[in-house]
Amino acid sequence: MRKLLVLLTLLPLLQACQTSDAEHNASDPPAPTKNLAQYVNPMIGTSRMGHTFPGATAPFGMVQLSPQTNFEPYLENGTYNPLTYEYCAGYQHKDSTIIGFSHTNFSGTGHADLGDFLVMPTVGPLVLEPLKTHEGSKGFYSTFSHDRETAAPGYYRVALDTYGITAELTATERVGFHQYTFPRSSDAHILLDLVYNVYHHDHKNVWTFVRVENDSLVTGYRQTHGWARTRMVFFAMQFSKPFTSYGHEKYDTMTYNGFYRRFNETENFPEMAGHNLRAYFNFDTEEDEKIKLKFALSSVSTEGALKNLAAEIPHWDFEKTRQATTDQWNRELAKVEAETITDSGMTTFYTALYHTMLSPILYEDVDGRYRGLDQNIHTSDDFTNYTVFSLWDTYRALHPLFNLLHPSRNNDMIKSMLAHHDQSVHHMLPIWSHYANENWCMIGYHATSVIADAVAKQVGDFDKAHALEAAVNTAHVPYFDGLGDYMQYQYVPEDKSHSSVSKTLELAYDDWCIAQLAKAVGDPEVEKEFSQRATYFHHVYDPSIGYMRPKLANGQFRADFDPLDTYGQGFIEGNSWNYGLYVPHQIDTMIAMMGGKERFSQHLDSLFTMELDDKYIEHNEDITRDGIIGNYVHGNEPSHHVVYLYNWAGQPHKTQARVRMIMDAMYGPTVEGLGGNDDAGQMSAWYIFSSLGFYPVTPGSSDYALGSPLVKRAVLHLENGKTLTITAQNQSQENVYVNRVLVNGQPWDDFRISHADLMQGGEIIFEMSNQPTPR
Amino acid sequence: MRKLLVLLTLLPLLQACQTSDAEHNASDPPAPTKNLAQYVNPMIGTSRMGHTFPGATAPFGMVQLSPQTNFEPYLENGTYNPLTYEYCAGYQHKDSTIIGFSHTNFSGTGHADLGDFLVMPTVGPLVLEPLKTHEGSKGFYSTFSHDRETAAPGYYRVALDTYGITAELTATERVGFHQYTFPRSSDAHILLDLVYNVYHHDHKNVWTFVRVENDSLVTGYRQTHGWARTRMVFFAMQFSKPFTSYGHEKYDTMTYNGFYRRFNETENFPEMAGHNLRAYFNFDTEEDEKIKLKFALSSVSTEGALKNLAAEIPHWDFEKTRQATTDQWNRELAKVEAETITDSGMTTFYTALYHTMLSPILYEDVDGRYRGLDQNIHTSDDFTNYTVFSLWDTYRALHPLFNLLHPSRNNDMIKSMLAHHDQSVHHMLPIWSHYANENWCMIGYHATSVIADAVAKQVGDFDKAHALEAAVNTAHVPYFDGLGDYMQYQYVPEDKSHSSVSKTLELAYDDWCIAQLAKAVGDPEVEKEFSQRATYFHHVYDPSIGYMRPKLANGQFRADFDPLDTYGQGFIEGNSWNYGLYVPHQIDTMIAMMGGKERFSQHLDSLFTMELDDKYIEHNEDITRDGIIGNYVHGNEPSHHVVYLYNWAGQPHKTQARVRMIMDAMYGPTVEGLGGNDDAGQMSAWYIFSSLGFYPVTPGSSDYALGSPLVKRAVLHLENGKTLTITAQNQSQENVYVNRVLVNGQPWDDFRISHADLMQGGEIIFEMSNQPTPR
Repeated sequence: MRKLLVLLTLLPLLQACQTSDAEHNASDPPAPTKNLAQYVNPMIGTSRMGHTFPGATAPFGMVQLSPQTNFEPYLENGTYNPLTYEYCAGYQHKDSTIIGFSHTNFSGTGHADLGDFLVMPTVGPLVLEPLKTHEGSKGFYSTFSHDRETAAPGYYRVALDTYGITAELTATERVGFHQYTFPRSSDAHILLDLVYNVYHHDHKNVWTFVRVENDSLVTGYRQTHGWARTRMVFFAMQFSKPFTSYGHEKYDTMTYNGFYRRFNETENFPEMAGHNLRAYFNFDTEEDEKIKLKFALSSVSTEGALKNLAAEIPHWDFEKTRQATTDQWNRELAKVEAETITDSGMTTFYTALYHTMLSPILYEDVDGRYRGLDQNIHTSDDFTNYTVFSLWDTYRALHPLFNLLHPSRNNDMIKSMLAHHDQSVHHMLPIWSHYANENWCMIGYHATSVIADAVAKQVGDFDKAHALEAAVNTAHVPYFDGLGDYMQYQYVPEDKSHSSVSKTLELAYDDWCIAQLAKAVGDPEVEKEFSQRATYFHHVYDPSIGYMRPKLANGQFRADFDPLDTYGQGFIEGNSWNYGLYVPHQIDTMIAMMGGKERFSQHLDSLFTMELDDKYIEHNEDITRDGIIGNYVHGNEPSHHVVYLYNWAGQPHKTQARVRMIMDAMYGPTVEGLGGNDDAGQMSAWYIFSSLGFYPVTPGSSDYALGSPLVKRAVLHLENGKTLTITAQNQSQENVYVNRVLVNGQPWDDFRISHADLMQGGEIIFEMSNQPTPR
Repeated sequence: MRKLLVLLTLLPLLQACQTSDAEHNASDPPAPTKNLAQYVNPMIGTSRMGHTFPGATAPFGMVQLSPQTNFEPYLENGTYNPLTYEYCAGYQHKDSTIIGFSHTNFSGTGHADLGDFLVMPTVGPLVLEPLKTHEGSKGFYSTFSHDRETAAPGYYRVALDTYGITAELTATERVGFHQYTFPRSSDAHILLDLVYNVYHHDHKNVWTFVRVENDSLVTGYRQTHGWARTRMVFFAMQFSKPFTSYGHEKYDTMTYNGFYRRFNETENFPEMAGHNLRAYFNFDTEEDEKIKLKFALSSVSTEGALKNLAAEIPHWDFEKTRQATTDQWNRELAKVEAETITDSGMTTFYTALYHTMLSPILYEDVDGRYRGLDQNIHTSDDFTNYTVFSLWDTYRALHPLFNLLHPSRNNDMIKSMLAHHDQSVHHMLPIWSHYANENWCMIGYHATSVIADAVAKQVGDFDKAHALEAAVNTAHVPYFDGLGDYMQYQYVPEDKSHSSVSKTLELAYDDWCIAQLAKAVGDPEVEKEFSQRATYFHHVYDPSIGYMRPKLANGQFRADFDPLDTYGQGFIEGNSWNYGLYVPHQIDTMIAMMGGKERFSQHLDSLFTMELDDKYIEHNEDITRDGIIGNYVHGNEPSHHVVYLYNWAGQPHKTQARVRMIMDAMYGPTVEGLGGNDDAGQMSAWYIFSSLGFYPVTPGSSDYALGSPLVKRAVLHLENGKTLTITAQNQSQENVYVNRVLVNGQPWDDFRISHADLMQGGEIIFEMSNQPTPR
């Protein structure tokens, strides 16, 4: 009770912080009193397939400044290194060498891009190649040890043992701040490697351009062609101390160099441009001398980067910036004040919460200008623009979590998606978009779900009629990935398009979302059209075998079929057994279709208990044995709602037990603590919801399904000023069953609870037990 | 006398036009009454080394839309085709095939770039390669005949015989207008070739990007790395009729294509991007159906191109645009109303005048925004921005001609140069700049001359103190092409830098210009510094042999020396015999240094009369026997002032006879009518001045030297409202000598006349004879 009082007295302060968050203005607000950042370990997920990064960033910041460890994208024989996939975030915990610090990184994605502007301090003879020089000697990489490495929200430090340099990093939203403590040297360097890209060291660059504005300021840009078709990032880089000299080397595949140049342009010549180049800046250093570096990004221009630099870090006080960013994290993390069963549970919980705030990222300059999908420069007059929308992943739990914890940001994200639509030559909402590019990754058009979910939960002030128009436009583009066939056949024929069943199921769900949106806007015609399309999942269900199954254009189900195989069976990142449970919008219908509650429960049971043959696993680069439970693959998103489906089958205790089992098995406080790619925060958002005891099984509706909380207690400070307390009475590792739920003192019999119920604040009490409630 | 009256009554109209010119606003002003455009033949100089283009453009227009004829940049064996140099402007009159129409071209330059956005209409099976398909069959080129080809100011027409298509082109300043008359076809195409570049068909592209906005509007950009290091041009392309389908093919050297794409992106998919791509748009056409195409450019963005398109041609009336541009040309050409000795002389004269208005070109959008040298977007708040500054050529006569005929434009050009300085990381005025890039071509920093000349002639309202600062900054950049050594040694040592004598001479002259500027601004310290530097030419004169001669860092003249050789003797585009006469700012001193007037005259005589050995000519790609007179090489600019030097030696009759000889030998009304590269209008500007009877031997002073006019009469309508009439009495082919000059009725004994004398208007009478004035 004493703790509750403390929390109540904190409320005004926390509200103040939330206001600050809503305005995205962090200029010296009062420091938060709780140090929740201490529980965050950014190293979690940096091993194997988590694909997270340990570097320094502000919440939702554009700059994500992180070490890049040594890997060879190509093997000695010139073939592609199959380990490359591990390096989506540039860092693998097993490595012992670092090649530098890059300013952009994805968190937890299943494909890579970025790694822009690799900076590396060195001493001794100048070496410009990261891994190995052309002569075969050692590259500029340094060895390092995790013993002399620290990662925290907004701060990263590592000892670069090869050079005796300590590197420290922090960041504001648009500016990275480096602090390098050098040994005494008359031969110290800071390298700017514009060749390096995550995945492909030298295959993605379209163009790079560098201007040495004066003896301590450098600007430029890089343009790449990778996952993003045409990506431009501009920078401004300011040193705390003038360099004594500088230069660059080109590694160009474009040999034509225009008219002959008559004077030396490689040393102390302030303009550099080319396909692939690396620049260096030379210094004399005293023992323990700190050279600092501020590195601002912009999507617009070097002028924009300079504005960002001046606005966000107008000083050279590294500690001040570090503290401000730590404070910013503490304010964000304090939106949920949790107590967990174990101490390490705090780490797992707050690291997951941290991981939900690494994407989408801010994507505009301090003056509101940003590069649009049409490559023109736009101004976000009435919103804040975001990018990195991994929507096939994040519509499930991440955006719903934003509706709970960051509704203002989610409103801005939806406005960003609408701007994307307005700038799209296809007149489409984003599918998977980053840095003013649509990369078309994965299937469906799940921005419609994010929008419908916000509407259902009354989040935001975006133009709903325009949002409906954008959704309808999106859902009518005939050349988009099976959509034309889907509209024609009422399912995606497998002989026309791969992953046909997955596409049919997801489009049907997305169409249901559009129908919900049309209903909210009051457009009965559109509502009717899309309510109809929402039923198309029926057409890929084969009642003769009781599975979703690929169907051909001639109306016949495909003969050759294995419901356990992930490849070539009409599914993507799943098989019929698990992905076939994807009808989140008409669950009761699905259960009836599949033979009723009893049979459906058996199907779910088999999912968790079967012994999956090795042949179904060995070729899946995402999944290891650790990442699956039976045929339940938590590392791939199509399963994320599945454990909650027991509720609909009348067996909530199985949801309760198994959700706790999944949390236990798939998450942990170690570097291996993610059972698969974090997928831009979706895996972590699943954990946060599940830890709190409820989950958005059907985004686009306002309902959550109840599970089994993992926290002992959590106080949610909502943006509307209300406080929601979740209390798990009699909570323990073993007490995974919920015998009774009380909402504000009243027993709660439904397994659903609505967003409105949560937003009114108050207390939800879960009465925990090691036995299910007697039925 | 009747003619003079007519001219006087025209005056108010012409003044109105000049006002319009000054404002760069050509929205439907009254049509000019004189058709001077009829005398212009844009074909002049399109053969051999003139390097002019025959296409359609507005005066100083950004769009220069011209046919590109068929040439192979690489020979069958893969080596570079030595004929490439002929194709600087994309067109050679000898060719019989056309591969399309490009929107940017240089006029008369000695190196190439541009050729952006090649458009070609075809019928029949789709062919996407210009010369030869990958299978070895015929490319999309068409044969054509000069019999069915018309070129006029602002208009070009050609019959594309292969396809039975008539192509017509016109242009406003920022928009090209195509009109294609097709045969009946169900298989008609308009190709947009983004691979083609002048010189290097497929080696310059950095990136290309295309968006099909709807069924008749396409936008995009191209980024190249050629003479310009990093050049971006954006476009918007509107068809008068919707295409039925479209697509593209890529010819990429970048193989990485990001994530796998899951649907067809080559046909009817509205986004295209890549290193090298060609797009096509398909149509059905009726017999004689016209498909029109408006093609706008911008340096800023596709948004900028769309604005330019809407502002400049808001209709589909091809004839209206053609007429408006013809009117614009007639207004510009009418600034000099000339009568020549022969009819064909009118063609030579007005074509030369036309060629002086093809560069520099306008370089900003209708809203004043343009890409700066720093690659940021700037707005020309108080001026009009220009680019294409071939200053080593054009400071001599072209910019001085602008001071006479287009002072408002020259003022804008100087402001453009100052903006260039302000955006330059080197803090330098332009050397040879185009499209927001410095290409560093040739030597010296002659923007200083252009500025000093304007100041001396009281042209413009640019900030003179800032101009001086910019000039001084430029003259102090130590790493610039020999400048550091020049400052240290007081000459450029030949063992430190090639073309050392040329550099020393030109820097000394440029420094004199800076001194003049400092004097005008009132900065005695700078004046003193640069007056001192202006004398450095002394240090490369070897009195023991009477020639300018390369000197080594040790102070010794180089032993090995041939004053007639153009290569490796310390000169560029000249030899000691002719280039050694380059002390335009201290001619009397030079004459004294070289042994006095008599010996100097003999040197000049030898120049024009010697028999130059073949060995001095054969390796010079610029010069043929036709382009030289003795050792006088008119095709290279360092000789341009030389013929006027006889005046200073007391032998003006030799200036008179030989300037007429040069005009006769080096210019003519045929396609071979230029004895060398027109060099962005410098050759033509020399002709205009010389035809009028005077020449700016020393830009930076207000003086002209008199020569021998070629016109019978010329009326100059000056921007100040005054009229200057030049009358050559008793003019004929043979009467090349000027026996007497009368300025407003008063005998004029000086061989010099000042700009102020000209600008007050009135009449200059040259009394011509076939005999020199008795001495």
